[in-house]
Amino acid sequence: MVKQYKSSDFAQMESRFRAALINSITGYKPANLIGTISADGINNLAIMSSVVHLGSDPALIGLFVRPDSVARGTLNNIRETGCYTVNHIASGMEAKAHQTAARYAEEESEFDAVGLTPDFVSDFSAPFVAESPVKMGVRLVEEQTISHNGVHFLIGKVVLLSFPDGAQREDGQLNLSAMDVLTISGLDTYAKPQSYTRFEYAKPHVPPSKIED
Amino acid sequence: MVKQYKSSDFAQMESRFRAALINSITGYKPANLIGTISADGINNLAIMSSVVHLGSDPALIGLFVRPDSVARGTLNNIRETGCYTVNHIASGMEAKAHQTAARYAEEESEFDAVGLTPDFVSDFSAPFVAESPVKMGVRLVEEQTISHNGVHFLIGKVVLLSFPDGAQREDGQLNLSAMDVLTISGLDTYAKPQSYTRFEYAKPHVPPSKIED
Repeated sequence: MVKQYKSSDFAQMESRFRAALINSITGYKPANLIGTISADGINNLAIMSSVVHLGSDPALIGLFVRPDSVARGTLNNIRETGCYTVNHIASGMEAKAHQTAARYAEEESEFDAVGLTPDFVSDFSAPFVAESPVKMGVRLVEEQTISHNGVHFLIGKVVLLSFPDGAQREDGQLNLSAMDVLTISGLDTYAKPQSYTRFEYAKPHVPPSKIED
Repeated sequence: MVKQYKSSDFAQMESRFRAALINSITGYKPANLIGTISADGINNLAIMSSVVHLGSDPALIGLFVRPDSVARGTLNNIRETGCYTVNHIASGMEAKAHQTAARYAEEESEFDAVGLTPDFVSDFSAPFVAESPVKMGVRLVEEQTISHNGVHFLIGKVVLLSFPDGAQREDGQLNLSAMDVLTISGLDTYAKPQSYTRFEYAKPHVPPSKIED
């Protein structure tokens, strides 16, 4: 049996039920912590599942921030300083990462509150997460707004990237499962992908071929 | 030991190596098939890992399409018809889903070429994937362009949603692991999240609390 919803059903749902449903319908999402620093020098850390690949040359990534969300501090800091960090959440970090979503006071750093370590690299002003296996330094290059709901869309250029030696495959790809990177479903679920399958570049009328590694 | 890259390193990389790396740095991505129909009535199907949640009320999702990509047919069809479907890729579908990325001729339907079944629902013109556990019908409401690389950003409203009875938790969230939904890493890797942890809504100065289910 199949359950079906239409637009009119969504409109009538209790708001938390609807948020839990609609946040889960796109599938698995990336699990990242966004590090920023305020003009007053307070380190901010916020969990986000809305980071998206936009292009490889230049290396651009997108980030969506709701206008009314707890991540308002993150948005303000990015606008003020023009930079932020994106740090992967690995297995074992999920409780601390989830806790960054709580509405801490502006003068409190989520790093201290949840027990993660801010790490600074060369002349990049935003804090990285020392415990994360994959860390990116990003500079804001463009901002757009979605007219239908006021959501802010930040477009950033990746200027720094670090990860453990040996976690990169010969073809360039990061081996996320070797680093125990997690993925998020909905608003509260953290899952760890384990077994995986890889395929060769697809060509018309040639059967899909697995890559063994 | 840690491997570090800067912007200048990205610029000097061989293009396929760079694409494999940068497509993997945001973390795990959703695994979806986008179904469309051309003005001539040819069903099109394209694998995409760039679907993103934009808001719950209204239910909005985003989709990014490269201007020069094999998915150009998808983009044209969405502009012509104003609608498309988003269908989750579950375990066992990955070889056929990956094969939709091949550059088939315009008059060839990827459904036929890879062996997936187009399914039509009521008055919605775009084809759904019969084999997918989670299916969405989406209407285009807004289109933007990223000035830095010409990527098209399509904003759509979810007007239809279907999934197997029993795959929704009491709080509204879909249980993706119960449906064997896959996630994508980089350009060629399909992984299945299995064990997971859920947490209660985070509050300041209250330790994170697991939800048992």
